[in-house]
Formats: sequence, C-alpha cells, structure tokens
Amino acid sequence: MSSSFGTLLRVTTFGESHGRAVGAVLDGLPAGLALGEADIQAQLDRRRPGQSTLTTDRSEVDQVRILSGVDHGRTLGTPIAMRVENRDQRPGDYGEMDTVPRPSHADYTYRVKYGIAASSGGGRASARETIGRVAAGAVADKWLRENFGIDIVAWVTTVGDIAAPNLNLETLSRQSVDAHPARCPDPKTAARMAELIAAVREAKDSVGGIVACVCRNVPAGLGEPVFDKFEALLAQAMLSIPAAKGFEIGSGFAAARMRGSVHNDPFIEKSGRLGTATNHSGGIQGGISNGEPIVFRVAFKPPATIGLPQETVDYQGRPATLEARGRHDPCVVPRAVPIVEAMAALVIGDLILRQQARGR
Amino acid sequence: MSSSFGTLLRVTTFGESHGRAVGAVLDGLPAGLALGEADIQAQLDRRRPGQSTLTTDRSEVDQVRILSGVDHGRTLGTPIAMRVENRDQRPGDYGEMDTVPRPSHADYTYRVKYGIAASSGGGRASARETIGRVAAGAVADKWLRENFGIDIVAWVTTVGDIAAPNLNLETLSRQSVDAHPARCPDPKTAARMAELIAAVREAKDSVGGIVACVCRNVPAGLGEPVFDKFEALLAQAMLSIPAAKGFEIGSGFAAARMRGSVHNDPFIEKSGRLGTATNHSGGIQGGISNGEPIVFRVAFKPPATIGLPQETVDYQGRPATLEARGRHDPCVVPRAVPIVEAMAALVIGDLILRQQARGR
Amino acid sequence: MSSSFGTLLRVTTFGESHGRAVGAVLDGLPAGLALGEADIQAQLDRRRPGQSTLTTDRSEVDQVRILSGVDHGRTLGTPIAMRVENRDQRPGDYGEMDTVPRPSHADYTYRVKYGIAASSGGGRASARETIGRVAAGAVADKWLRENFGIDIVAWVTTVGDIAAPNLNLETLSRQSVDAHPARCPDPKTAARMAELIAAVREAKDSVGGIVACVCRNVPAGLGEPVFDKFEALLAQAMLSIPAAKGFEIGSGFAAARMRGSVHNDPFIEKSGRLGTATNHSGGIQGGISNGEPIVFRVAFKPPATIGLPQETVDYQGRPATLEARGRHDPCVVPRAVPIVEAMAALVIGDLILRQQARGR
Amino acid sequence: MSSSFGTLLRVTTFGESHGRAVGAVLDGLPAGLALGEADIQAQLDRRRPGQSTLTTDRSEVDQVRILSGVDHGRTLGTPIAMRVENRDQRPGDYGEMDTVPRPSHADYTYRVKYGIAASSGGGRASARETIGRVAAGAVADKWLRENFGIDIVAWVTTVGDIAAPNLNLETLSRQSVDAHPARCPDPKTAARMAELIAAVREAKDSVGGIVACVCRNVPAGLGEPVFDKFEALLAQAMLSIPAAKGFEIGSGFAAARMRGSVHNDPFIEKSGRLGTATNHSGGIQGGISNGEPIVFRVAFKPPATIGLPQETVDYQGRPATLEARGRHDPCVVPRAVPIVEAMAALVIGDLILRQQARGR
Repeated sequence: MSSSFGTLLRVTTFGESHGRAVGAVLDGLPAGLALGEADIQAQLDRRRPGQSTLTTDRSEVDQVRILSGVDHGRTLGTPIAMRVENRDQRPGDYGEMDTVPRPSHADYTYRVKYGIAASSGGGRASARETIGRVAAGAVADKWLRENFGIDIVAWVTTVGDIAAPNLNLETLSRQSVDAHPARCPDPKTAARMAELIAAVREAKDSVGGIVACVCRNVPAGLGEPVFDKFEALLAQAMLSIPAAKGFEIGSGFAAARMRGSVHNDPFIEKSGRLGTATNHSGGIQGGISNGEPIVFRVAFKPPATIGLPQETVDYQGRPATLEARGRHDPCVVPRAVPIVEAMAALVIGDLILRQQARGR
Repeated sequence: MSSSFGTLLRVTTFGESHGRAVGAVLDGLPAGLALGEADIQAQLDRRRPGQSTLTTDRSEVDQVRILSGVDHGRTLGTPIAMRVENRDQRPGDYGEMDTVPRPSHADYTYRVKYGIAASSGGGRASARETIGRVAAGAVADKWLRENFGIDIVAWVTTVGDIAAPNLNLETLSRQSVDAHPARCPDPKTAARMAELIAAVREAKDSVGGIVACVCRNVPAGLGEPVFDKFEALLAQAMLSIPAAKGFEIGSGFAAARMRGSVHNDPFIEKSGRLGTATNHSGGIQGGISNGEPIVFRVAFKPPATIGLPQETVDYQGRPATLEARGRHDPCVVPRAVPIVEAMAALVIGDLILRQQARGR
Repeated sequence: MSSSFGTLLRVTTFGESHGRAVGAVLDGLPAGLALGEADIQAQLDRRRPGQSTLTTDRSEVDQVRILSGVDHGRTLGTPIAMRVENRDQRPGDYGEMDTVPRPSHADYTYRVKYGIAASSGGGRASARETIGRVAAGAVADKWLRENFGIDIVAWVTTVGDIAAPNLNLETLSRQSVDAHPARCPDPKTAARMAELIAAVREAKDSVGGIVACVCRNVPAGLGEPVFDKFEALLAQAMLSIPAAKGFEIGSGFAAARMRGSVHNDPFIEKSGRLGTATNHSGGIQGGISNGEPIVFRVAFKPPATIGLPQETVDYQGRPATLEARGRHDPCVVPRAVPIVEAMAALVIGDLILRQQARGR
Repeated sequence: MSSSFGTLLRVTTFGESHGRAVGAVLDGLPAGLALGEADIQAQLDRRRPGQSTLTTDRSEVDQVRILSGVDHGRTLGTPIAMRVENRDQRPGDYGEMDTVPRPSHADYTYRVKYGIAASSGGGRASARETIGRVAAGAVADKWLRENFGIDIVAWVTTVGDIAAPNLNLETLSRQSVDAHPARCPDPKTAARMAELIAAVREAKDSVGGIVACVCRNVPAGLGEPVFDKFEALLAQAMLSIPAAKGFEIGSGFAAARMRGSVHNDPFIEKSGRLGTATNHSGGIQGGISNGEPIVFRVAFKPPATIGLPQETVDYQGRPATLEARGRHDPCVVPRAVPIVEAMAALVIGDLILRQQARGR
C-alpha cells in the first residue's frame, strides 16, 4: 500500500521482475506537455543493465509504451500509464533461494512481511522496480525543464575509496556525466573508478559508492513545512531507492563539525534577487528552497549479490553456503544516476504544484 | 498543508512561537492505552530550553494539557489533542529582522513562500514547533513500549570534532543518556562536549553535532515497499526536524567505501528466529525491518543564530551587519535527542498499524 | 485515523463531549486573510443548541479561541488551531447507557470498533464534534467570499412532511434563512415547520428533514476526476455529518425518472461565457463545475434520542426499556444548516487550491 | 491527481477511450489470494457494452491482462496492475464535438479545467474509465468473499417510472439479477423495464434509473469516524461513478419524513450477537457498521447522448443543433450494476484493512 509517491504529482509504480511487465502511472501532471516515448526511453536507456558493455541492442530492451494520458503528442492532464514488458522471466533461476535467504537481501524480510514465499523473492525489491520511477521521472523532468528551466544532473562522486574532486556545479551536464561509463564527470577519476569496479568484479565482490546531484534554477519558495520540507521529501525519495543507505543536503554530515560563523550562508544581492554567498544550506532554508542550487548526496551500499561464497543459514536456521551465479552488477552507482534524477524530478514537480496551489 | 505526518498513526502539529499555543493532534492511536499528562511531560521536559542550567522552575514551563481523546485515564481511539501555551510572546523582539533576513534562517524563504512578513519570522521554523512532535511522540513511545516492548534511545554521538566511542547498543538507556547534560552516554566524551559547547558559547558562535538512535525489539516485517520503506520514512521524519542536514541508516555513508563481502550481514540462528551476525543493514533489508535493532544517525548543523557579527544584506539587497542578541542555544543536539526519539516512535507506530492492517 | 478531511485545505477535528475541549486545526489556507475570532463565532452561534429559545447568554457558550496561524489579524499560511472549551462535562449523566446501547445511536458500534466502553458513549458521534467543522468551515467560507466572491447558503427545505416551495436561488441569503428559527426562508412554511417541531417535541418524539444548499459564483473548472469529482467530495462531506442519510446533486433522485431530452442542460451564451439554460446538473458536469450554481440536498434522519419508551435489549441481549431524560433536539435540520455550509466551504476551498496548483 | 481511491486498499485507474489501453493498479491487497484473469473477466463482461444483444463475441472484447502482483496464481501483496486494450480507437468520430460541447457532457468542463481541447473530449469522463474500477473491484470482491464471506449484490430497482417491488434482501444473488438483461431480479418488472428502454431507444431519447445494493455479512466495526464514516466513503465512491446524481443509505431521503419512534432500529438478540429488529440505519450507525446488511441506493441520470436534435451553442456561443449519431446506451443502470458492486467492494476492503490495523 505504498507504491505511490507524491501529493499532487503522484507516481504509482508496479511490477516484479518475474511478472508480465513493470511500469508506472503518473497522475497530476498538467496538460499540454509535448511528450513521446522517446523522451522517456532516453532515461530508461541510461538505467538499463548491460549498457556499457554494448553487447545488447538497446532498441530491443526495456522499451516503454505510453498507454494513456497523451493524445496527439501532448499530455491530457490525466494519468499517464507507462509499461515496460519483462522479456526475460526466469522463474526457475532462483532455486537455491527458495531455501536460503540471501544475506542483506529482501528475501527474508519479504517472506516475514507478506507471509508467502514468492518465486521472485522480494519481487518489488528488485532493481527492475526502478524502471517505473525512471519513466515517471523522465516525464516530470521534461516538464520541469521546459516550463521552469529546471535542470537536474546527478553523477557518481565516489566509488569505494575513490572520490571525485570538487566540480563546477554550474557547468555539469548529463552529457559530461555520460562521457565515461562510470558516470563521474572528472575523466581521471572516472577511469580509476572503472578500474576499481573491474577489479571488484574480477574478485567476485562488490563495492559501494555515492551519487551526488545538483538541481539548478529551482525557484525559491518550494517545500512544505513542517513535515514535507524540501529536504525531508528528498530524503524519503532517495532512501526509497534500493541499496541507498544515507542522504545529506548541502553541508550534510560535515555540518556537524562546523561552527555557525562558517556554516551560515550570508545573503548577497544577485541580479535583482537575494542570493547567498556560500551554499552550505544546499539551496534550502527552513525546509523551503531559497533560489540557490539544490545540492545533495546519496550513499549506496555494495550490492548484496556477490560471487564469493557466503556462510549463512537457511530459513530453518541450518548452516548453508551461498554462491551467486550469473552476472551481477558489482557497483550500482553508475546506473543509480538516472534513478536519483528521476526521484528528484518527482519531488520538485510535486512541490511546484503544491506551491502553485497557493495562487501566488 | 503539510503539518501532518503518518498514514494511520497521524500527527498534526500547530503553533508559532508568537501565538497563543503550540501543540499537536495525534489521530489513529488504538484505544485503551493508559495515558496521563505526566507521561508526555517527561519528554517535553527533556526538550525544553534552559533545562541544564536549572534556573527555571520546570513545573511552570511548557506544561502540556490533553484536550481530548482520553477518558478515565485511557485513550479512546479518537484524536488526542495536546496543547502547550506560549508564556512568553515577545512580538517586539525581532525588530531588526523585519528588514534583514537572518543568514541560514527561514526568514527569507518563508517570506517568499507565503508572501507575508510575519512578526514571528518563519514562525513554524521555530524550534518551538517541535513541542507538538515531542508530545505526540511521547504518546506513541508509551504505546510501543507497553504493547510491543519497543525501546527507543537516542543520544549525542558527536559535537563538532568530538565523537563518542562505540557504545554497547544493547544496554544504552535514556537514563544513561541523561546522566550528563550533553546527553552523550560516555561520561568522558560528554564532559569534553560540554566544554566545547561552553567555549563556543563564549565565542558567541555555535557548533553542529550528530544524534544517533537505536530502536530495540522492533518486530520484523515493518516497512512498506516501495516508497514508504522503513528507512525512507525515517529519513523524511528526521530531515523534517529543524537544522537536520543528513540521515544514515546502519552503515550509512561508510557503506559507500565497503565491499559486499564485508558489508553483507550473514544470517544466523537466534533463539528460534533468523538473526544476523552483523548489522550493517541497521535492522532493515529491502525497506522492511528484519528483527535486529534499527540504528540510524542524524546530522545537525550549527544553529544559525550567533552573537558574532555577520555581514549580509537586507531584503532590499543593501549591506547590513547582523548581531543576534539574547540567549541562544550554541548547539542543538542535546535537546534534539527527545525530538529524534519522538519522530522515530511516530514512524514505528505508523508502520506497526500498517502491518497489522494485513491481518497477519 | 480519519478525523482529517481535504487534500490541500485540510481540516482535522478533535474532541468529545466529555473532554476538556473540542476544536479543529485547519491547514493549507493561504496567508493573508483577515481573520478574527468573531468571524468564526458567528457561524458557531448559528450551530449551538438552545439558540432559538434565547434562554442562554450567547457570549458565554461555545466561545472559540484561535490558538495559532493568525498574527496581527491575518492568517500566516500555517495551521489555524481553534478550540472551544467544554463547559458542561457530565460524565455521570449517561449511567443507563453503560448497560443499554441506545437504538440507532453509535453506542454499540463504537464499543465494537474501539473495544472500550467510554463514559462518553460514542464520543465522536456527538453533535458536539461538529463544532470543529463549523469553525474551520467559517474560515474557509470567509476566504472564498473575499477572494472569489463565492456565496454559500443552506436552508431547511423540508421537516417531516412539510416542504418548502421552490425558492429563488439567486436571492436567498443567510439573513433570509435566519429570519425564522426553523431556517426555512419561506415564512409560511417556516411557521408550519416550527409547529410540527413543537408538536413532535411535545409527543416526546423526533422528526427528520432535508437541508438544501446553493453555492453561487463557484468558478468553472473545479473538481478532480475521477474519484474526487466535485459531487463525490460533496457527498462524502455531507454523509459524514451526523444523522445524514442521503445526498443528491442537481436533479438528484428525480433524475432517475427523467428523459435525457428533458434532463440535458442546453448551453447558452451568458455575458461572454457559456452557461446553461437549465441546471439539472446542479452546476457540475463530468465531476467538474461548469460555472452555474452548485445545488444539492442532504437528508437527515429523526434524532435517535427520544423521550418515548423504547423496547430494546442491553449489551448482554436482555430485554430493556429505554427512556431518554433531559432536553434533546427533536429535529436537527435547523442547526445542521451552518454545518452543511461549513462542509461545502471546505470542499470548495480544497478544490480551488487543487485547481490553482495547475498554474492556470 | 485524483485517479486514486482508498487509504490502504488503493485503486488507481488510468486510460481514455482513445488511448492504447485502460486499466487499474490495485495496491494494498494482502498476499495469498488465488487470482486469475477469469475472476476479473466475469465482472468486466457484465459491464461491457453490447452484452445483451449478443452480437459480439465476448471473448474478443475488453479482455483483461494482469501485468503484475500475481505469481503462481496467488497475489503477492504487491500492486496488481491490470490492463484492457482499446480495440476501437476512432479519433475522427467526434468531429462535430470539436466545435459544439455536448449538453450535460464533460466536453466543456474538461476544456475549462485542463485548458486543452482533446480529441477524446472529456476522455476520463468516458464510461470506459469504469473498466479499471470494475477490474479492481472484482479482485477486492473475491478477497472479501473468500476471506470474510462478504456478499455484495446490486440490482436495478427503477428505470424511469418503473420501480421494482420490495425484494427479499437475504436471497438476492447476482445470478437472479442477471436472469434478465434489465438486471432487475423481479421478472415482471424487468420485462417492463426492458420495454421502456426499448421505447426510449426507439424515440432516440434516454432514461434514468436507480441501482440498489446490499452487502451481506459485513462485520460490525467498519467505518472510520468522523470523515471516513462508512456511508461517507460509500457516498463518495458512488457519486464518483459517471452519471450518478444521488446516494442514500438505509432509509435515505424517506428518513426525512419519519418520526424517531418509527425510524429507530431497536436492538434484539441475534444468535449470540446484538442485531436490530429493523434496518432503517442501512447497517451503519455513527458511521460504523453494526453487523446488519449494508443497504444503499444510487440514482443515475438519463445518458446525455441522445439522437434527438438539441438546440445549444458552440464554444463561441453561437447557436447550434446537435444530433448524436451512432449507437448509444439509452439507459445506464443495467451496466452500472457491476460498477456499483466494484466500488462497494473497494470501500469495504479498505475499511476492513483499516479496522484490522487496530490489531483487534
């Protein structure tokens, strides 16, 4: 009962990896946006697995179909249903998992919660669930860009111990992020990240990382005190992404070490509006955007599925050794980039509608 | 339109620092809980200002009144309205702020959002708003403790550069936390924190910190995939607290540096149920509690109001120097402890009701 | 968990007849409305018991206090908490009801639902709960009137078999409605209604009635297909009022007997906009207002508490005779008038905000 | 932003008549229900057009596909997405409506609300939107029947001036309702209704009617005071159905004419529980079910699309004559029967989950 997110711009996702399809219904988007499947496909292609090895024909996988809400290439203001078929339903593939819950996976908790042992394990905990988010987010993103000039760019800022240097947040673009498969816009760091990921894969292990995101041209005044503060909704949105373990806005955890005299962002005059000289606030004060770029970071854990043998127990508590077969992502952060962008777009879109509701 | 939080256990807070009262309405709590004002007052006393200097008569300030929802000392299952009067409404006190927005405060963003310049500045951004949260959280906390044995303890784990050592999460108690006004259960660290806070106050500056929290005996199966995952709701709840800048669950940002082979929590048999040998997951897998302790941390920035002069601009963009007068908290984390506990209790209470709804 | 109503303009009511107070929190109203307690008191006075016999000093009863959300006589855009104290808490008065549930009352169902036997019976089923609705509705009503020229007038159209003739919906006013205590704006009918009510009271019985309502100057475009259609939200709002048994919009149940050629409302040109020649639609087509007056009716049952002896059974199923003591309203519809207006104002206010959210 | 209904059992519908598909996502249904497409198809077949003339191959039209939420024939507890393709998208068919809004249709109001002139007119106001409701309702209905023995039966009680006699509410079944295409379980009345509908069709006109519904074996204790009272949610649900103009529970509008001494339902002992001797309450007291059958009625207007010429104006206010071409239903009530049942099932299912949440 929680596959929906948002108050006025509301996404509902559906689908397990082993069913017919995954997708989303996006309700509340105003009418009149020019929208085609290609607009959505672009972000889905950035999310899909296997993209960087170029072994798969892109046009064949995770192809989105718009089922409703668009007429003559324009949104109607009605629910936009989007569907991506599951081409590859392998219900037999998870045999061992019927008896042994994978450590740090959702197998065990789903079974406890729902009281059933599904062949798809924690079907909604699958990375495939995020397809619906990315599709809906791509629609919101286009609406934000065309109507408000809002520009959302996420990138990989750390993989394991390798961290990107400080980047110019004004010039970062999705293009510069995608220049390297690691999705770090600093080429040298990206290369090192790619090496680390390759080494980890070789070792049949996995590694975590951090995705950063900047949202430019977000108007001041967005965010709904006191529980739907801008950063509170972002935090919920980001922590709802599979494998996310942490969220910080602006100075984040570093703020805990700082003095107020350093942390405070003095106001300055910026071409007719008030801006701030620094942006430790991350563009948000009192839960409301102040017109500066929204800047936040999301920490992701290393993927739980690894090829290395793991000593654990089965559902009956008997010792068992688990070795994952097949191909698994050794690091999720490059593919998490469009997911983070999608969730940011959904949050911002919702907050714009909620602020517009005031009629100001 | 966002002063409410929760789906089934739902709190609505109200009140500005300059109005007649602040408070909360808690709807959805099942009937039959023994509840008196003293149960709520205890946590309010831990939140109120001035408590550690002992200069104020505690029984006189922030006294809660239950207006509804309780009859003959038992909850009725109907909305519990709670009110705390504002004794000290000083509308004249903020004269300078009418013209100069305080850096990193909500003055400016509230004015942009709501289109008015209230004498109370961003009235709902005041720390006083958290009274309603703490009152409602105290009710939820008692219900969780008495009906499920759930035990929520938060503490100060860092102030500035001073960090507590690893603590035994099984034995921590509110009593041990309150043994020192800094609310760090490690006495030596607490003393150093107190020294730092005193020095910062002396310097007319402020300092940030981190509050950690452990929730014990939380049953497995709580959390609503995919958007209302346990950690996602906790993240929203915590980032909605004034001055919060970051949230992390379990391994948190440290997970980004780890390998899966280290991070994964192997299952082990624990007296008839499955437990985990380590708890990097922080008690949550796939958005659902696994029966291990829920462990998370919240970063708070240094308070924005400082005595040091700040160079900034007024609402018209003209240079101005701001110097805060009066007494202000140089560090919020000791008082944030009961707020973090309150928000955790509200999240857990809501998730229990939502899981019970399944009839399992 | 359902004491809240509305999506963007959201009221939460609280209070039982035997607690300290009843009231409401209204969240989401835009800032800047001039508001004082007198604005709210006027509608509360129209709701309160005993008003037409003039035996009570009005200024003493059901006096509202605004606790928050208003500063210097203007709304802040933050939650407006309003409270009315209960002066007359008689917990001992319901002795017999501890053992015998009143027929057609909520005593039995509340006990089944909440699992407790409260001294206040179904405390939230008390007419006193509607104080919070009327207070919140009065605020919404003022906002609608001053900002949009919306004019909501309800009146008593039938009591028992006595029905008012067709009235001019363009000239009806609250003043004309209040000209007679029966709140029927047709004086002759009102007199007959008053006679009937007196006779029913004399007979220790009660009688039902119908309240009609017209909302003028409601802009076209309000209503949220498909589940929050204008008439759907009105229906929910009205059926949530104690003792309501039916709702109809426009032609209502009479539509079931009509032919389409008669029922259809042809469009005509009305001073630069499209209007309709007739208004069988009641101002709503496809769930969306069309600019014509919103017209609806609400049926109320006869009050369940009557002086006549009733043969029933106690909670153990043993035969019992119930005779209500004290003074009870023999007919609720005159006092229901401001409640219907309040709920209509809350629905319309919410739908305006939701439509404004589209930025059109 | 209102295509969702329900708090815990939550349906989201999507689709216009001229898009690729219509459908629904049902979120919140507990895991473990045996469910196949045939279970849903049965109710869809009762809803679809053309069914009683038997000219169309049933297996070809409005065929539902389950996209998610079901695995190995059992619900997973995750969102159940269902889709019905639109076979017959005729965007060119509505040419005249581009310039002339149909009287008492949603053409005009949709244009005002959404600011666009869609080829599908008020696409979501189409009867086709109800496919999603019926599909989701069929799932809820099966769950209610199998887990709680709840039995929901709706039927046509009036068409125009022809009204069914009082029926035995204990023995009515969907089978007896479907015995005649008019869906009135009294054969003689059904025949007269069919004659009237035929005559109205012949006259190129349309006619209204009333659908009644009984829900048996609904447990006592359902309904969420004060705004989500059982009858309040039913009223919203029913008034959200296209063409609905009125709702009444139990005695309904007739209650307005009754005395309390007659209307009150005395309690009696019924095989170990309290029941009532009469059921003017319609199974609900104080907004909460009392264990007696839930009985309500919904009034539907005559369909707006008629073959008779109508004098109206175009969007520019210029006189125009409208004559609908093609085949249109002259009376909606026979097909509304499964829609009413679906909405009732969704309401009851949601209220059961909400009551179970209390853990009682």
